[in-house]
Amino acid sequence: MASKETYMDTALALAEVTIGQTSPNPSVGAVVVKDGNVIGMGSHLQAGSAHAEVHALRQAGEAAADAVMYVTLEPCSHHGKTPPCADLIVEHQLAKVYIACLDPNPEVAGRGVERLRQAGIEVEVGLRQEKAVELNRRFFKQIREKSPFVTLKAAMTLDGKTAASTGDSRWVTSAAAREDVHRQRDLHDAVLVGIGTVMADDPRLTVRLPEGGKQPIRIVLDSDLRIPAGSHLLTSPEAPTWLICGSSADTEQSKLIKPHVKVFQLGTKKVELDSVLKLLGDEGVQSVYVEGGSAVHGSFIETGLFDECHWYIAPLLLGGSDAISVVGGVSPERMGQAKQLDIKSVEKIGGDLKVIAIPKKEAE
Amino acid sequence: MASKETYMDTALALAEVTIGQTSPNPSVGAVVVKDGNVIGMGSHLQAGSAHAEVHALRQAGEAAADAVMYVTLEPCSHHGKTPPCADLIVEHQLAKVYIACLDPNPEVAGRGVERLRQAGIEVEVGLRQEKAVELNRRFFKQIREKSPFVTLKAAMTLDGKTAASTGDSRWVTSAAAREDVHRQRDLHDAVLVGIGTVMADDPRLTVRLPEGGKQPIRIVLDSDLRIPAGSHLLTSPEAPTWLICGSSADTEQSKLIKPHVKVFQLGTKKVELDSVLKLLGDEGVQSVYVEGGSAVHGSFIETGLFDECHWYIAPLLLGGSDAISVVGGVSPERMGQAKQLDIKSVEKIGGDLKVIAIPKKEAE
Repeated sequence: MASKETYMDTALALAEVTIGQTSPNPSVGAVVVKDGNVIGMGSHLQAGSAHAEVHALRQAGEAAADAVMYVTLEPCSHHGKTPPCADLIVEHQLAKVYIACLDPNPEVAGRGVERLRQAGIEVEVGLRQEKAVELNRRFFKQIREKSPFVTLKAAMTLDGKTAASTGDSRWVTSAAAREDVHRQRDLHDAVLVGIGTVMADDPRLTVRLPEGGKQPIRIVLDSDLRIPAGSHLLTSPEAPTWLICGSSADTEQSKLIKPHVKVFQLGTKKVELDSVLKLLGDEGVQSVYVEGGSAVHGSFIETGLFDECHWYIAPLLLGGSDAISVVGGVSPERMGQAKQLDIKSVEKIGGDLKVIAIPKKEAE
Repeated sequence: MASKETYMDTALALAEVTIGQTSPNPSVGAVVVKDGNVIGMGSHLQAGSAHAEVHALRQAGEAAADAVMYVTLEPCSHHGKTPPCADLIVEHQLAKVYIACLDPNPEVAGRGVERLRQAGIEVEVGLRQEKAVELNRRFFKQIREKSPFVTLKAAMTLDGKTAASTGDSRWVTSAAAREDVHRQRDLHDAVLVGIGTVMADDPRLTVRLPEGGKQPIRIVLDSDLRIPAGSHLLTSPEAPTWLICGSSADTEQSKLIKPHVKVFQLGTKKVELDSVLKLLGDEGVQSVYVEGGSAVHGSFIETGLFDECHWYIAPLLLGGSDAISVVGGVSPERMGQAKQLDIKSVEKIGGDLKVIAIPKKEAE
């Protein structure tokens, strides 16, 4: 018989493979074990459809009585789009449930556990908790802070440049790294760029993968709604385009009247990032993939409003103090004021490096 | 009995541990094996002292007759500071010699092999050749091109900056990474900086390791001999300081009259890198560790006159298009004109990354 850790790792693997397809719901996996045999497995596949526990119990059937369930997130106890999973577990008369982590919503956290315990089912919370929280970090952030999880993505040369002094930037990274960027777009609810990037590169910001993919909302920070009428983001309706502008922008311009285009006007003249993230949180956007450029990255870093950095580093040396730096804006006066990160992973993709880093946790 | 590859790897390991202490000689290791037992081992330890073969044969003594030797570089056949090793091998009546690579000097390459074969000793060349050439890449470069092996070293934030807009740069990397830099200085014959770095940081450029170390020559590119009289490089005699200046510099300045200071005046007003490397090659400098700053790195990258890059990347995001970029100079017009590298290794040192990259080999 495998260890309880192994069964929970299996449940986590079932959850992990669905990341990006369950939003606004979390990714959840469940495994049911009896007498040393797996008798049911399942993942939540899509918002509005059955939860992981439902799939696993359906597979187990009547054999679920006296079995043990391993589930990556606390079973729900409320009637949502589907009936409460806690009730279903009680009905199936399971003996014990291992839960990796509680519901992140403080108003309902612990209620599923309570419902199970009241029915005489043994419950243990916390097995592989860190991994489970990490897996749904985007969902947890949105639920707890009503603000999307922000990933900053940059592609630069080994000397920190994204473009030559002329603005030429094709290509910094390899085709393999660029394909990885398309996969990341697919995993996020939205991608975000500054108007400078639209003017310079006229990007499409769509997912273009051999096997297809989910198109993210394309968000542009455009204080004065300067976006050119002929830009891909206005002319190609493959994905929604959201323009976020300042209080003095003319929102009546005819170029903006398109079914796939939506304009959000903020109360301030300048587009401030905290207002942008509040707006996106209210709109239910769980994760944003920020693709720059230099000035937008500068603002996110200066304000510290980011959760993760995906840095693609190409084995190129461009040189030039006149070339465009990956992060612009205004430098603080001292090196000691730089934002401190922890490197989570380094991976080689094609000939490039992909570094994932997260803001350094304050010492407790 | 171990494989011939294992014995040669042992000889290579014996050589590797002496890197940095044998200059201007190469690092060489030798292993003598008879009837499946190692009967002698040795490395060349220091220029002017016994070669690797001498140590290994001294240990083996009369048992060396009919034994097999594994040596990482072709045994010498000429009378230098020590008698020819090829003769010594012949005297000891070995049966066979495995040689990883031939002498890099085309005028003598193959002569050691010839001497051994004439005496009836079987010789096989090429076992672990790539590793052996890589090990002595600095020595090979100097012998073949009469120019030192150039390593560019940089320490930057994840966004490619070495200092804030005010010039403040303490510290970019961790203490562990800075200790690694001291180890690299110890492994090179010389370190090199531009006068800008001396003016801004007044560095000592010495090796400061708990266990001591060899002090490299400290080279400054200083066209007009602007170096301040009170700078560490002029006032601290722990290591030689070499100043390389242009044709119109005043070389008679009293600040320069110090036993540890040497001035080299080039024929051109500006200090051109090809002349600098030719000069250093003529002076017998085998390896140079270029520590910047931004403008000096820019020149080395623009001219392509480098062999290896050691890039320390700190998990910091400074931001600021006004901050100082790790590589300055003038950017080419197109991203496609950036110098292409291959990443050889990525290592975590403290919280930082150390990336080693070499110029991409042209497709053959």
